[in-house]
Amino acid sequence: MARRAQEIAEFVQARLIGDGNVIVTGIASVQLAASGDLVFVQDEKNLEAALQSRASAVIAGSFATGKNYSKPLLISEDPRLAFSRAAHLLRPKVERNPGVHPSAIVHAGARLGSVVIDERVVISEGAQIDDGTWLGAGCVIGRDVRIGESCELHPNVTVYPGTRLANRVIVHAGAVLGSDGFGYARDQKTGRYEKFPQIGRLEIEDDVEIGANATVDRGALVVTRIGRGTKIDNQVHVGHNVRIGTDVVIAAQTGLSGSAVVEDNVVIGGQVGIADHARIQDGAILGAQSGIPSRKIIRGKGIVFWGTPARPIRTYLKELARLARLAKKE
Amino acid sequence: MARRAQEIAEFVQARLIGDGNVIVTGIASVQLAASGDLVFVQDEKNLEAALQSRASAVIAGSFATGKNYSKPLLISEDPRLAFSRAAHLLRPKVERNPGVHPSAIVHAGARLGSVVIDERVVISEGAQIDDGTWLGAGCVIGRDVRIGESCELHPNVTVYPGTRLANRVIVHAGAVLGSDGFGYARDQKTGRYEKFPQIGRLEIEDDVEIGANATVDRGALVVTRIGRGTKIDNQVHVGHNVRIGTDVVIAAQTGLSGSAVVEDNVVIGGQVGIADHARIQDGAILGAQSGIPSRKIIRGKGIVFWGTPARPIRTYLKELARLARLAKKE
Amino acid sequence: MARRAQEIAEFVQARLIGDGNVIVTGIASVQLAASGDLVFVQDEKNLEAALQSRASAVIAGSFATGKNYSKPLLISEDPRLAFSRAAHLLRPKVERNPGVHPSAIVHAGARLGSVVIDERVVISEGAQIDDGTWLGAGCVIGRDVRIGESCELHPNVTVYPGTRLANRVIVHAGAVLGSDGFGYARDQKTGRYEKFPQIGRLEIEDDVEIGANATVDRGALVVTRIGRGTKIDNQVHVGHNVRIGTDVVIAAQTGLSGSAVVEDNVVIGGQVGIADHARIQDGAILGAQSGIPSRKIIRGKGIVFWGTPARPIRTYLKELARLARLAKKE
Repeated sequence: MARRAQEIAEFVQARLIGDGNVIVTGIASVQLAASGDLVFVQDEKNLEAALQSRASAVIAGSFATGKNYSKPLLISEDPRLAFSRAAHLLRPKVERNPGVHPSAIVHAGARLGSVVIDERVVISEGAQIDDGTWLGAGCVIGRDVRIGESCELHPNVTVYPGTRLANRVIVHAGAVLGSDGFGYARDQKTGRYEKFPQIGRLEIEDDVEIGANATVDRGALVVTRIGRGTKIDNQVHVGHNVRIGTDVVIAAQTGLSGSAVVEDNVVIGGQVGIADHARIQDGAILGAQSGIPSRKIIRGKGIVFWGTPARPIRTYLKELARLARLAKKE
Repeated sequence: MARRAQEIAEFVQARLIGDGNVIVTGIASVQLAASGDLVFVQDEKNLEAALQSRASAVIAGSFATGKNYSKPLLISEDPRLAFSRAAHLLRPKVERNPGVHPSAIVHAGARLGSVVIDERVVISEGAQIDDGTWLGAGCVIGRDVRIGESCELHPNVTVYPGTRLANRVIVHAGAVLGSDGFGYARDQKTGRYEKFPQIGRLEIEDDVEIGANATVDRGALVVTRIGRGTKIDNQVHVGHNVRIGTDVVIAAQTGLSGSAVVEDNVVIGGQVGIADHARIQDGAILGAQSGIPSRKIIRGKGIVFWGTPARPIRTYLKELARLARLAKKE
Repeated sequence: MARRAQEIAEFVQARLIGDGNVIVTGIASVQLAASGDLVFVQDEKNLEAALQSRASAVIAGSFATGKNYSKPLLISEDPRLAFSRAAHLLRPKVERNPGVHPSAIVHAGARLGSVVIDERVVISEGAQIDDGTWLGAGCVIGRDVRIGESCELHPNVTVYPGTRLANRVIVHAGAVLGSDGFGYARDQKTGRYEKFPQIGRLEIEDDVEIGANATVDRGALVVTRIGRGTKIDNQVHVGHNVRIGTDVVIAAQTGLSGSAVVEDNVVIGGQVGIADHARIQDGAILGAQSGIPSRKIIRGKGIVFWGTPARPIRTYLKELARLARLAKKE
């Protein structure tokens, strides 16, 4: 999609230096940029490379203090954010014609808005899917599932009965939403495990993204909830009854056990383990592979925790350093 | 399903206090209970809330010593277990009419009992599926697979050729059963890896449950086996030749490498790693994220192990405390 | 497939001791071997058991110095490697008749060689699939995907648009190739995350094998690449922009964050975490569950690293031993 540099600058609220009539047609990294591309640089040391590249325009920070460059510059407080927004303008979403592929199986009792349903999708009785939502090939939507507007479910996603997705939720291939939680009661006489009922629901709020092959369990008796704007990476596991707040980020392969609570704005690295009933308070940061014991409360906006059991990273690094010195002395 | 409190008490072998004619129609948590619901409390401090709730009956422990309550009480040694059993009575399984959906593809050489085969299932030559089993939409059943009675395979499960499931096995969406193990022989001259043959089988015994997106590999030359009553959570990985005993519990994202052995009654937390040829003896407990080195034997019924390499939790906690003090001193 | 011992010896470049006319029809482990089977022993202490077994021929190392055995012996420098090769001769791949199952949906704009396309596969516009490749039931192939010759995709694999697989790539069930990377830019004013464009490609070279339910993300602006001969186990996660060299081995549930680099011949254990922009240099070995911090460079051909943050295993074990002694003293 062709846009003038001036249009892009306005869209991303950047200050333009240079010729606003230059035509931009795509986005790229500095190293792969071709003529017509928009690129961005996050710091001054990469600015020269961007100017030397074949790109037609550059988003840069306020470190670009010149008045005359070889290309138009779009000056933004946060070049990476501005670039992400510019991408919407320059690379509109894949166009999909509304309609239901003839190979899809839609139960008579399901209600569909103006949606795109791809090959071999199965939609069960009582499901409701609203306008603008796309279901990729092979998705299976259980009974009474509700999916809001403008969601994107990539191929082979399974949604268990009763699950609710709000609007603009993106779910990547192979993810499973609303599966049974892992709960059993052991009969002490026989040693056998009896399945604890898993009849709660999963609710996912607006603007959530869920990675490939991630799994999110329904509640046992209550609700599992993922808050607005939260982003969940591939192969993350979210157990039953978990409550995740808004604008939380969870990197790949992290696991949240049953009834864990993650408050708003928390950032969680990869392969972190959060045990049952633990609570991560607003804005805490958990380093990769750290472990939060059962019922533990993690406090501290902007504080990084690391290790198992997780402790403030300064403490953890001090301990590691002390141990290294002790071992070296021998 | 409506039941009298008296009927439920008999079914779960509880002692009834109060009016046995009260009608119960469902189960719920104390906080969400409506009229007609049965709830349970595991300890005395929650009893009052249950009595104040809208529930129609309460399962409690022997801590409830009164004779006169506002609702019928069902007194059990293990309220949570009794509640789990009552759920069978009050929430019968989803009814599914036996039959093969016309969109399913069943090879002429497959043998089906009185089963429920949903949309788009593929069943290959030589497969046999017994009475009462349900295959959710999109499942793919390989050649010569045998699935026993009353199993439930949720949507999009893949079962590799030759795999055997006994009776009442539950498999959640996206799980892969019987995939090739990870075995190679390196050619020292070329540096290239040659695939070691993966031609063994996977056998899963009665009453096993396997979580969403879990993977269980077939044996290389022998058999991978999962024992009766074992429960496996989402995203667990079980390598080739592994043998797991009966009534084992394995939480989410744990991995068992090739030829590991887990004996009966073991409890394994989330994100645990068990290396090849390790053996976890009867009744041991592995804390979350712990790591068992190659060929290591873990002994100790009821003893909790933690850390990597795993050691008795008392030892591990002592080490952590010692290190914390040393670091603080500086 | 029946072969004379002599033929097998020639094929695997082993020296034959004994009767080369003995007929071999299969492979097995020593313990399960039946008449007709070929077995192997990697060390002298297992030789006697192999000779006592029902197997018809034995691959052994140069430790077998006799001249007269009860069965033909095939002497190889690397018995396990020779056995792996013999398997190709004795257990040819499952025969599949080229053709497209009538239930598969192949877009008119896709180009197929002489391929085997199973039930319910979906192949999108612009895809190209070359001779000898098999797609298992339920696979979904996105737009403009290119898959080379003699690849095997097991059931329910999802390949995102634009992904490229070279020749002889094996992908196990449920794997997801080319999904969006996990990249966002946070708007500091609103606290909301904006999706960073994920428009790069995934390229997989010859002879790669990818495990069940593994996920490999496309590049954000550049390419994610997996080098020739690399073997990736179940549930491994490979983030966006990652570059993996040739003949790398990565065990189950390991995660590689965005822009990590793994050079040739690296061996990575299970549940390892490699943070963003880390680099693992040629031939290094990462022990199970170890963690490589962001931007860290791991040097050392053949050196084993362990722990989080990973250090040379000798150092790590020394630290563990020191700590154990300190804690015991108290």
